[in-house]
Amino acid sequence: MRIIVYGVGAIGGVLAGAMALGGREVVGIARGRMLEAVRANGLTLNSHRGTEHVRFDCVGAPDEIDFRPDDAILLTMKGQDTTAALEALRAAGVREHPIFCCQNGVANERTALRYFPNVHGVTVMMPATYLEPGEVTAFSQPRFGVYDIGRFPEGSDADDRALAEALAAGNVAGFVQDDVMASKYGKLLMNLGNILEAALGTGVSSGDLYQRLRAEAEAVLQAAGIPFRDVGSSDPRRQENMQSTKLDGARYVGGSTTQSLTRGAGSVETDYLNGEICLLGRLHGVPTPLNSRATILSAELLAAGEGAGALDLDALEARLTG
Amino acid sequence: MRIIVYGVGAIGGVLAGAMALGGREVVGIARGRMLEAVRANGLTLNSHRGTEHVRFDCVGAPDEIDFRPDDAILLTMKGQDTTAALEALRAAGVREHPIFCCQNGVANERTALRYFPNVHGVTVMMPATYLEPGEVTAFSQPRFGVYDIGRFPEGSDADDRALAEALAAGNVAGFVQDDVMASKYGKLLMNLGNILEAALGTGVSSGDLYQRLRAEAEAVLQAAGIPFRDVGSSDPRRQENMQSTKLDGARYVGGSTTQSLTRGAGSVETDYLNGEICLLGRLHGVPTPLNSRATILSAELLAAGEGAGALDLDALEARLTG
Repeated sequence: MRIIVYGVGAIGGVLAGAMALGGREVVGIARGRMLEAVRANGLTLNSHRGTEHVRFDCVGAPDEIDFRPDDAILLTMKGQDTTAALEALRAAGVREHPIFCCQNGVANERTALRYFPNVHGVTVMMPATYLEPGEVTAFSQPRFGVYDIGRFPEGSDADDRALAEALAAGNVAGFVQDDVMASKYGKLLMNLGNILEAALGTGVSSGDLYQRLRAEAEAVLQAAGIPFRDVGSSDPRRQENMQSTKLDGARYVGGSTTQSLTRGAGSVETDYLNGEICLLGRLHGVPTPLNSRATILSAELLAAGEGAGALDLDALEARLTG
Repeated sequence: MRIIVYGVGAIGGVLAGAMALGGREVVGIARGRMLEAVRANGLTLNSHRGTEHVRFDCVGAPDEIDFRPDDAILLTMKGQDTTAALEALRAAGVREHPIFCCQNGVANERTALRYFPNVHGVTVMMPATYLEPGEVTAFSQPRFGVYDIGRFPEGSDADDRALAEALAAGNVAGFVQDDVMASKYGKLLMNLGNILEAALGTGVSSGDLYQRLRAEAEAVLQAAGIPFRDVGSSDPRRQENMQSTKLDGARYVGGSTTQSLTRGAGSVETDYLNGEICLLGRLHGVPTPLNSRATILSAELLAAGEGAGALDLDALEARLTG
């Protein structure tokens, strides 16, 4: 199985670099300065193992790849770029290849299934950052992360097992699951707090706001009949595989929403995290006032351009409940 | 109720023009040369009533509108522009206003419900074209069209009834329905043939291909437990309201997919028509080989840039079944 990593950012960069270092054949699809850097000098992967340099093929778009039957495609771009990526893959001749959605939220799988028959969900638990072109950092040890992998909407197959093997070569613990979406909904519940961290700054207490966002969401999932599995701190696989690494000169700047606000990205993923709960609540008649205000707050913080950590707890609570 | 028509193309142009001519307060949101033309000279509406000129407020984006509590927002842009439109509406202060999805397919309602709580589906049956900036044509008489209107995911409310009244002032027959999505799925089944018309050219026989696409789709809807209601030629409302108009100097160039291919648009809607059937088939384990090939064919025809009518029936059948 050759691994096509579509989106060489924090997650895609660590994945591509680690699997290439593990001897796996990897092709990255990257943009802009990341593409230039990886092509010119390869990728630098910082981790508890030290600083490693690795080279792998990297292109700017799918039509530069001569796709093979044994290719697996990992989607690691932001969700708002998924549709354009799927259209580019189709135009490049991708048809029956397995498509693995290694992204937060639970919407990308459905989007991909509209274009391709062979779609898989992946729950990505892997703290990583991308701050400089050509350089990524993994903050977890002894494994860089824990992934759940399975077919969408359910089941598992040989492609899932092959990806788990490739991930193992890249120092990522992959677990094949017949109900991967239950794991992704569990991760979605954790990600409801991303906007709190982004608003307050990394490491600042958010009081009981996370529990209140989550309580709304659990009521929604129950009404919708959607199962979820806790993949948070109570998951024993985290204790075994994912201990926090202290790295000289590299600081974990926070989750994906915090990173987006810090960079002043054009959009953040809140509409696919807290917004997924709003959508399900509206479909199933369950009020979601807190999560609804969280999505509006996220859009407002982005528009204001103040970056992460713009609010204190009192101001945040007022914005979410006032 | 003030009517905000977001997307002044064929459908949005006829709607905005007809309701403004009927004395309703209308604000259009348009782009490019259409915006320039409507601002400079108003809109020209060709129909069985003759050629009428009408002026209404037209802006380039939602943030130029001072939204009022009695505003209703009609989405009439292409589906691929819906998400950006919803984000622009939210940034402009829209919150609880009714959002009416006057678009083909069944995906826009779900997209809108992620951003706003008050979402409505509208089944648009209204042959119309937009070929020149500032000029649209309605091809049906005595009414310009027949619309079904209702709350998403189900039910109906005072906003639906108010829109039906506004449509009536615009010579469109609006019917409030408690199960509007059954009507939209019925329209979806009709739209499965759009790609055949686009490939062959308007008025060319497609043999039994439409029935074969539709048979796949009906099996999928049955497996998914999704009800649909026939809104095609057997619908008596069409006989009463929608007779074809012959207009001097104006030719109906075909459905929305044909119009997109004729214009060489950046994308066509096939992924949300035949592609919706593929998605549901994959979710529920029903094969959809014909509809799947239809989506690939659509992307290939667009990429080839040959415009509508590029294939004869034998070639089309080979592409869909070979």
